[in-house]
Amino acid sequence: MELLKETLQSILPANDEAIKDAWKRMDSLSKPIGSLGQLEEIAVKISGITGKVKNKINKKVTIVMSADNGVLAEGVSACPQELTAIITDNYTKGITGIGVLSNYTKADVCVVDIGVNANFNNPNIINKKIAYGTKNMAKEAAMSREEAIKAIEVGIEIVDKYVSEGYDLFGTGEAGMGNTATSAAVISVLSGIDSDLIVGKGAGLTEEQFINKKNVIKKAIGLNNPDKSDAIDVLAKVGGFDIAGLCGCFLSAAKNRVPIVIDGVISSAAALCAYKLNPNVKDFMFPSHIPVEPGATCVMNEIGLKANLGLDMRLGEGSGCPIEFLIIESALCVMNDMHTLQEASIHNTEFFVDIREK
Amino acid sequence: MELLKETLQSILPANDEAIKDAWKRMDSLSKPIGSLGQLEEIAVKISGITGKVKNKINKKVTIVMSADNGVLAEGVSACPQELTAIITDNYTKGITGIGVLSNYTKADVCVVDIGVNANFNNPNIINKKIAYGTKNMAKEAAMSREEAIKAIEVGIEIVDKYVSEGYDLFGTGEAGMGNTATSAAVISVLSGIDSDLIVGKGAGLTEEQFINKKNVIKKAIGLNNPDKSDAIDVLAKVGGFDIAGLCGCFLSAAKNRVPIVIDGVISSAAALCAYKLNPNVKDFMFPSHIPVEPGATCVMNEIGLKANLGLDMRLGEGSGCPIEFLIIESALCVMNDMHTLQEASIHNTEFFVDIREK
Repeated sequence: MELLKETLQSILPANDEAIKDAWKRMDSLSKPIGSLGQLEEIAVKISGITGKVKNKINKKVTIVMSADNGVLAEGVSACPQELTAIITDNYTKGITGIGVLSNYTKADVCVVDIGVNANFNNPNIINKKIAYGTKNMAKEAAMSREEAIKAIEVGIEIVDKYVSEGYDLFGTGEAGMGNTATSAAVISVLSGIDSDLIVGKGAGLTEEQFINKKNVIKKAIGLNNPDKSDAIDVLAKVGGFDIAGLCGCFLSAAKNRVPIVIDGVISSAAALCAYKLNPNVKDFMFPSHIPVEPGATCVMNEIGLKANLGLDMRLGEGSGCPIEFLIIESALCVMNDMHTLQEASIHNTEFFVDIREK
Repeated sequence: MELLKETLQSILPANDEAIKDAWKRMDSLSKPIGSLGQLEEIAVKISGITGKVKNKINKKVTIVMSADNGVLAEGVSACPQELTAIITDNYTKGITGIGVLSNYTKADVCVVDIGVNANFNNPNIINKKIAYGTKNMAKEAAMSREEAIKAIEVGIEIVDKYVSEGYDLFGTGEAGMGNTATSAAVISVLSGIDSDLIVGKGAGLTEEQFINKKNVIKKAIGLNNPDKSDAIDVLAKVGGFDIAGLCGCFLSAAKNRVPIVIDGVISSAAALCAYKLNPNVKDFMFPSHIPVEPGATCVMNEIGLKANLGLDMRLGEGSGCPIEFLIIESALCVMNDMHTLQEASIHNTEFFVDIREK
């Protein structure tokens, strides 16, 4: 509890002075003002995080939180629970989507067991297990308030540790059968939007299974009646250990003033929890995918963020993070390496025209 | 003329057998079928180009064609003509958008003067000047049919040469004041869509200048009356040397069976010309940006292509190409390095579910 409290108190907003200086440089570069679109916005946002106009990423990592969900017993997923453990194990082998893409982009993957219903004999999985999965939220609260806080603090600790090792760009991923259901429940409660409009099909449900999934989520919310003004209560009653852990990752990234990528609907649910706990975290978040699942769209609107990858990816795992890392690094190259109009021998002010959309 | 004729005759469609084999492997990888969206489609499309399931990019380059346009005299651009030469010169210094992003992604930039209204004293600009800019299409044909063919052949020769040097991934960029006007004219005629619906604002016109631009384009099309079934006639009458040269780049890439990126509205106009000359080129084209300019949207629809970068970039230069190169290389990593379900110890067929959008 102390760690969470201290973390929430330490999160400051973006550095407005640095943002002003960063826009000044960005708008002086040899291009029509605004013509590099979101690359410009990303580079300036990072200036607001670090307080410096020019920035360079040294080490990057995607934190993957794995956990099982009791609500799986209600048939909300097309996949069996065993897959959570198998996929978690595979994450450490570099053979999954997040693995091969991280390898390509020279990023690391940190795999955390925060609540998988299995024991691992794998030294590359960090054991932070809170329980062997949550309880079934369609019958009772998924976890206790203490467990929710503990899970958030796991995420804080992990990012704190990586920051101390020099990592300065983070991604968020997960594995956990049933976690699109818990995410939809969390997003629905926190946004106040009917869960039927939030629930996605996840990984390939039939129409009948999809209707059941919607009913289960609605039932879980009704039964537990979480307090929408208290994100920890929402996480405890209808969330999951993975969502809570990732929520902690967002909080720690903001406290430590490093950028962190939102990737997919589970990560989005965690981001929304973090945002509700302290709205300043918004200044540190970089969404990767233009959302496919309706819940992720809702979160982008709630927080006020704009994604940039139109790749129709919906694997999860945090697999969009390594690609978003490349976009972020590209943006920093624009800020650092492009020459100004003066340096580029362009003295005609007609070129300074502003083409940003009004 | 011989080179163009031979090139058009040598362009074969994608290798369907390789595409079938590539989908077979892609769908056997440890992920829900279709869950990596466009990364899957990109990797498979490249298999159709090379005839091999697994592929690796060795050398990549963006070809930048620079040329001036006589129609600039009609006030269709907010920028002065001198900028074409200044920017072209800057392209060789690595200080512009395309320069810094190419440097980041380890791609080369090939700068071609195909018709700039200036003489360069710069050994890093390839001199293929056809004329010191085109004529004013609002008063007469922009160029002769012979010049249009010559410009297309410049593009073919350049890509042929780079392919012979081992380059196997191409991008397309340009510089040329007034070239969003010529591009709009070309796209309007070839698509049969009213030019008023195609014309974009380019780099920051006022509302009055925008209306003038639309009128000039409509006038140029009416005056020259190009034959929409003859892309060379369209290029000659209302196109530009840059568009024609890039059209040749697309044709040569298809002939040599290497992937090539469409980037921005001018490149899109060139891609549409190439597609009209031989529809098989479609199988070799990879659009970067989700279009901002209406003309580019029109071309995506005409050819039937889907872009994937939602970065709101509209600088031109081919500046999206280096980023799209990263997306393509990411896609190839998925195909090459992910393990199959069997290799990943996932034997439960419930996981084989197909989540592609129907």
